[in-house]
Amino acid sequence: MARKKAAAHDENSPAYQRGMAQIRKQLGPMADAYIRNIKALAPEFAWVNVTFPFGELYPRDVIDLKTRELCTVAALTVQGFSLPELKLHIKAALRCGASRAQVAEIITQMIAYCGFPAATNALMTMKQVFDELDAEANDTRKKKKPASRGRRA
Amino acid sequence: MARKKAAAHDENSPAYQRGMAQIRKQLGPMADAYIRNIKALAPEFAWVNVTFPFGELYPRDVIDLKTRELCTVAALTVQGFSLPELKLHIKAALRCGASRAQVAEIITQMIAYCGFPAATNALMTMKQVFDELDAEANDTRKKKKPASRGRRA
Amino acid sequence: MARKKAAAHDENSPAYQRGMAQIRKQLGPMADAYIRNIKALAPEFAWVNVTFPFGELYPRDVIDLKTRELCTVAALTVQGFSLPELKLHIKAALRCGASRAQVAEIITQMIAYCGFPAATNALMTMKQVFDELDAEANDTRKKKKPASRGRRA
Amino acid sequence: MARKKAAAHDENSPAYQRGMAQIRKQLGPMADAYIRNIKALAPEFAWVNVTFPFGELYPRDVIDLKTRELCTVAALTVQGFSLPELKLHIKAALRCGASRAQVAEIITQMIAYCGFPAATNALMTMKQVFDELDAEANDTRKKKKPASRGRRA
Amino acid sequence: MARKKAAAHDENSPAYQRGMAQIRKQLGPMADAYIRNIKALAPEFAWVNVTFPFGELYPRDVIDLKTRELCTVAALTVQGFSLPELKLHIKAALRCGASRAQVAEIITQMIAYCGFPAATNALMTMKQVFDELDAEANDTRKKKKPASRGRRA
Amino acid sequence: MARKKAAAHDENSPAYQRGMAQIRKQLGPMADAYIRNIKALAPEFAWVNVTFPFGELYPRDVIDLKTRELCTVAALTVQGFSLPELKLHIKAALRCGASRAQVAEIITQMIAYCGFPAATNALMTMKQVFDELDAEANDTRKKKKPASRGRRA
Repeated sequence: MARKKAAAHDENSPAYQRGMAQIRKQLGPMADAYIRNIKALAPEFAWVNVTFPFGELYPRDVIDLKTRELCTVAALTVQGFSLPELKLHIKAALRCGASRAQVAEIITQMIAYCGFPAATNALMTMKQVFDELDAEANDTRKKKKPASRGRRA
Repeated sequence: MARKKAAAHDENSPAYQRGMAQIRKQLGPMADAYIRNIKALAPEFAWVNVTFPFGELYPRDVIDLKTRELCTVAALTVQGFSLPELKLHIKAALRCGASRAQVAEIITQMIAYCGFPAATNALMTMKQVFDELDAEANDTRKKKKPASRGRRA
Repeated sequence: MARKKAAAHDENSPAYQRGMAQIRKQLGPMADAYIRNIKALAPEFAWVNVTFPFGELYPRDVIDLKTRELCTVAALTVQGFSLPELKLHIKAALRCGASRAQVAEIITQMIAYCGFPAATNALMTMKQVFDELDAEANDTRKKKKPASRGRRA
Repeated sequence: MARKKAAAHDENSPAYQRGMAQIRKQLGPMADAYIRNIKALAPEFAWVNVTFPFGELYPRDVIDLKTRELCTVAALTVQGFSLPELKLHIKAALRCGASRAQVAEIITQMIAYCGFPAATNALMTMKQVFDELDAEANDTRKKKKPASRGRRA
Repeated sequence: MARKKAAAHDENSPAYQRGMAQIRKQLGPMADAYIRNIKALAPEFAWVNVTFPFGELYPRDVIDLKTRELCTVAALTVQGFSLPELKLHIKAALRCGASRAQVAEIITQMIAYCGFPAATNALMTMKQVFDELDAEANDTRKKKKPASRGRRA
Repeated sequence: MARKKAAAHDENSPAYQRGMAQIRKQLGPMADAYIRNIKALAPEFAWVNVTFPFGELYPRDVIDLKTRELCTVAALTVQGFSLPELKLHIKAALRCGASRAQVAEIITQMIAYCGFPAATNALMTMKQVFDELDAEANDTRKKKKPASRGRRA
């Protein structure tokens, strides 16, 4: 006899919608593709990813989002192996109002709690994020100013 | 302006009730006290503890509970520091049909994946659990047979 | 004065042969190349890899191989950094009778014990394994049906 | 030929004095005993403990102390084994302006990044800190009001 | 059909005898009780504990025992949770010729690789070991000099 | 009111110069580029990297550099995720007098303390280092013998 699955997962439910709204707020345009990617592999994983941290924990008002994201950056730094997730949350920290210098500062502070190897892993991940953001900003600038560049020529 | 808390937490909701039913099934009589204890410290922590792993993950029918609990024992063994949680899940594994020898076997297998220090931590935690269960069984036997002991005297 | 090495390592010994038989059973055709690769770097490492987990632990009959492999998948998931080893053991779990859905389910369950970063690392590793297996299956199909494909053209 | 030790350690140096001032600011009255205890075991350990995180990292002005301490609480939570250090930094977070609810909130947020076992270890450590602080506050109240208690008798 | 256990475990075999000789050399008088304790819980665990690290790895002549033990102290320090095993190996390091200052030095060096929380855990474990050894030495002195103490009285 | 940064960082100070001398001794020609790279991302991170482990810890005379580097190799092996840092310190261990066989031996010994996944990660990192060193040695040989090669042509 097969037991039933625990819960029907309704993506139109308030719980899921609240989670998706929050994840878009923190991760920006990449949020939907990120969840879609996970859902294709394991729908249950995607469901809890949306409804639990983003639908349940992050929207609470006890601590502001910028502080929450810096705490997450600190946590992922000391773990040493959480580099793909760290990339997401460095971007999220910047979106939530942290400066690049503040991200670098928290990673540097973590040397005291995880040593240089994990902190250096995080620093190099931070560099990748900053380089990607700079490249995107560069692309955007180029697309926006074709006329002005034409005039200079 | 204060943001609102993410969700009203209704302990009569199906999600919470399903979680509590599941946690009682796995942890037995200690389940309610365990959650009450956490709730007194941090109600949000208790809510996600009930609704997420127990309300959402464990009741799914893809893998049987005994196998799930042995996997959790394996996971907590390799972490090395998860000894209070390991105590709970060794008890849960036994409740779900695993034998003591099987618990010892999985901890032994983990030597290959986490080395001796973490595996020995787990083995000593297993000993504590078995000793506690033996002491409880002993107490129960004594309470059940006051007459027969009286007769022997 | 130089101390002697601990033990002469005889690859024809029952201990080594039993280990190689077991490793082939779990890892399949890649087993021999895997061990040969390690042996070229550090013969002692290869020797203990064959004789200890595979010659000593896995062949014991207390727990079936499928359950053992799912426990190993759980353990490697929570470690977060054991992704090359996780690839091997996801393949081994499938060879020992686990379904793809069961592998995904155990990785999803581990969210509760290691959080999303380590579990997501494992999920992406699982995707790599499934993609590789699909590509191999595809290659095999193509090689087997050259005539039928010719007829369709 | 013996190499010389790297550096003469002058506790009257600005570097050491700045570190001790900072550590007292964050840890309060227990700071001096904490460092003295370590110095008795390993003077070099104590020297770097004072001059590196407290003399060098924490006094920087890029991020405020309260946010820094919440980040440290997050980091120590996910490590799972850093419970004695976590006790110190929960106290420090409170001294630097975090509320008890905010400490509990960050520990709860960390469930998503380290799972329940490490987060529960942290929650129980938080409980110990709060209980100790309550007991101290109680002692202080009793000592301050001997007259009023006498009058009641 | 039940599969057979992998190997008959003969404690008179050269492999086991070599392991026990080595473990006594490193851990001293406590070695036999340590293994007996584990064997009572899980005979397979005890067998691999004796034959694999002590029978196979430590007796090899490529690196001297003192260096090996300092490396093990370093490894257990950075893990943060391996404190019972660290106690054993700090004692073993001292038995193999390391000085107390060298043990403290390696733990201090590890701050750079694991941060203060794990290194402080190790330092406090080192203190316990040194205190125990001092107490034992004190007891031994007292037992050896009953006459001289009598004369003073 | 903005607090001042903790310390003026003078790269001509004895502390920094001592650190740079030490890091060059251990890491060789790549030392300067390594620190320059970090400094471009986070000057404070680079400052503590130079002055704390290399300026403060490694130059102390209690333990010789070769033993220190083998301990660091052991520590980074068990962490599992510290592979970029491990590359540096395997090179440093060789520069400080360790043989390739001794590096392989310590990584093999660590199987007992961290299991196969982390140890195998380290072994594959060791292979990368040895391959790089062999390729460099090959390049150097080729460059040194242009005449002889010319004569052969």
